[in-house]
Amino acid sequence: MDSINIKQLAEKLNLSTSTVSRAFRGHSDINKATKEKILAMASELNYQPNHMASNLRDKKSKTIAVIVPEIANNFFSRAINGIERIARDNGYHVLIYLTNDEFEKEVAFISELHNGRVDGIIMSVTGEANDHSHMHKFRKKSIPLVFFDRMYDDVITSRVATNDYDSSFSATRHLIDRGCKRVAYLVVNKNLSIGKMRMQGYLDALSSAKIDFNPGLVIECTNELNRNIAILKNAFNSIKPDGVFASVERLAIASYYVCHNMNLTIGNDVKIICFSSLEIASLLNPALSTITQPAYDMGVEAARILFRRLEGGEEKENDYESVVLESELIVRQSTLGI
Amino acid sequence: MDSINIKQLAEKLNLSTSTVSRAFRGHSDINKATKEKILAMASELNYQPNHMASNLRDKKSKTIAVIVPEIANNFFSRAINGIERIARDNGYHVLIYLTNDEFEKEVAFISELHNGRVDGIIMSVTGEANDHSHMHKFRKKSIPLVFFDRMYDDVITSRVATNDYDSSFSATRHLIDRGCKRVAYLVVNKNLSIGKMRMQGYLDALSSAKIDFNPGLVIECTNELNRNIAILKNAFNSIKPDGVFASVERLAIASYYVCHNMNLTIGNDVKIICFSSLEIASLLNPALSTITQPAYDMGVEAARILFRRLEGGEEKENDYESVVLESELIVRQSTLGI
Repeated sequence: MDSINIKQLAEKLNLSTSTVSRAFRGHSDINKATKEKILAMASELNYQPNHMASNLRDKKSKTIAVIVPEIANNFFSRAINGIERIARDNGYHVLIYLTNDEFEKEVAFISELHNGRVDGIIMSVTGEANDHSHMHKFRKKSIPLVFFDRMYDDVITSRVATNDYDSSFSATRHLIDRGCKRVAYLVVNKNLSIGKMRMQGYLDALSSAKIDFNPGLVIECTNELNRNIAILKNAFNSIKPDGVFASVERLAIASYYVCHNMNLTIGNDVKIICFSSLEIASLLNPALSTITQPAYDMGVEAARILFRRLEGGEEKENDYESVVLESELIVRQSTLGI
Repeated sequence: MDSINIKQLAEKLNLSTSTVSRAFRGHSDINKATKEKILAMASELNYQPNHMASNLRDKKSKTIAVIVPEIANNFFSRAINGIERIARDNGYHVLIYLTNDEFEKEVAFISELHNGRVDGIIMSVTGEANDHSHMHKFRKKSIPLVFFDRMYDDVITSRVATNDYDSSFSATRHLIDRGCKRVAYLVVNKNLSIGKMRMQGYLDALSSAKIDFNPGLVIECTNELNRNIAILKNAFNSIKPDGVFASVERLAIASYYVCHNMNLTIGNDVKIICFSSLEIASLLNPALSTITQPAYDMGVEAARILFRRLEGGEEKENDYESVVLESELIVRQSTLGI
C-alpha cells in the first residue's frame, strides 16, 4: 500500500494540516481526544511523519543518494559519473553510500534515507541479502528508487540492466570458438540475480557447443586479491582450464597474476575474457578482451528515470520503467594469442 | 573566533537551554524582550542554531563526510577504503561528496555541511579555488575537518600528506640516472600546493644534475583523456622528451596511448614514471614505474585524527595534527627498458 502525505491525512480527518503536524510534534496545546483520533487514522492509513522534510519546511533536499557496493571498480565509478551529469543538469547533488557488499550497511542506509535526507535513490544491491524486508518497507514510502545492474527481483521498481545473459553466452562462445575445451567460470556471488544470468549464459553456450558441463570449472572467488590468487593457483594446478570467463573484472586481474606467476602465456595457454569497464584494458600485458557494459550510459539512464519520477509526483506501480542496454564484446590479445 | 554551543549561550544569559532553544524555534510563548536579548547575545557570541542537530534531539549524526575531487582514480578510492575501515570501527557511516574538481560544488557542499548533517569532514580540495572564504567561514563552526593529500595552505586544520617534494626529486633523479636528458613534467593544475611541491622536486633534481630547466618541458594537461592525448602527441612531436614524469596517473596512461600510437618503445625511447596507486601497474605493457602513495594508510590516518577530534570535544588550534607519510618509488620496466 502506498503511504499518504500529511495533506491527505488532514483531509480525511477534516482538520488543518497544521493541527495534524502539531500532533506529531508533540505540542501540548492539542486536545487529547483529537490527538488520539489523528494517531489512530495515521496508523490505519500508513502515514508516517517525515520530520526532516518538515523541518526543512517542505523544501526538497535537492539531493539524491547513490548506493553502490564499491567504488574501486571502474564500472561503478563510471556509472556514478553518468548519474552526476544528469543530477547536475537538474540542479541536484549526489551523495554516495558504499555498502562494501555488506547487508547490514544496506539496511542501515535504507532506514536512514527514509527520513527525507534525499529525494530519490539509485541503487546497486549487495550480494549477501536473502531477506529483502528492508526494501519492501521502504517501497511503501514512495521515495523514488531506481535499481541499476545489481537488483532484487522481488522488489518492484524501475531498473536499468544490460543484456547479461546474451553477453555471457557470446563471451563463452567466443572462448570455445577460439579452441578452448575447458572454460572456467569465475564468480564472486552466485546468488545475485546478475550472477545467475551470467552463469546461465555460460551454461547454455557450453550446451550449444555440445560440451558437457563440469561443475569443477565453476570457481567461487572472493573480493580479496590475495585470497583469489590462492584459489585460482589451486584451480589452475588441479583442473587446468584453457579458457577463463570472469564474471567480474577483479577475477580476470587475479588470473593475470596467477598466469604470470605460473609462466602460463595468456592468450595461448590460457585465454581470458571478463566483464570490465577498465579504461586501460588495452594497455594490459596482454591487452584484455572484455565485455564492456555501457556503465556511464547506465548511470545516465537510471538518473533520467529517477528525475522523471521526481517530476511526476507520487509514484504509481505502472509508472515503473525497465531499460536494458547492450554490452559490447571487445576482442583483444588475451583471447587471440600471439 | 570559535562558535559557542547552546549550553554556553544559555549560561551567559542566565536562562535555561530550553528557553533559548524555543526562542530560535520561533515559539510564541516567549517574552518578546527575552527573545530579543537572546538573539542579541547570540549574534555577539557568534552562536548559530543547528536545526538539524537539535531536531535529532542532540544525537550525533554518526556520519562523517568525505569530500574528494573524483573516485575514478585509485588513490581516492583506496583512501576512502581506509577511512571506511576506521569509521566502521567507530560505528560511523561515511558519505562521499564528489566535487569533480569544481569549486562551486565544493562551496555548496561545505555550506550544506554547516547544518549538522555530519559530525566531521575529511577533505581533499579542488584545484581551481583561489578564494577560500567558504572554508574560513566553515572553520568558525568547529566541526572537525581533516585535509588529506590536496589542501589549502591558508586554512589551518589537521592534515595528512605525503613527502611529495622528496618523491618528485627521487623520481626525476631516477629518470636522469637512467640516462634521460629531456625530462618532461606533466601536470594538471600547477596552482595546487601539492602541484607546486612536485614541480619544485622536479626542478631541484634537474638542478642537482646540472641540467638547465626548459620551460617547454612542463606540459599542462587536463582531466580528459582525449584532450590529453592530443596535447601529448603535439608535445612528443615538437619537444621530443626522452623521459616523462607524470604528476598524476591519468597523464601516464595518456602517455602510454601516445607512445603506442607513435611507435615509441616505452622504457627505451621514452621512460615513464608517475604518481599512482594503480593496483595493476605491474600488469601494464610495459609494467609502469610508480611513486606509490600509501593511499589506504592516509585514509586511515586522516580518519583517526578526525575521531580523536570528535572524542576530544571542542577543537582548539593547538590540537591540530600534521602527519606526513612516505611514498614508495617502485621501479618497473617503463623506466628500465628492455
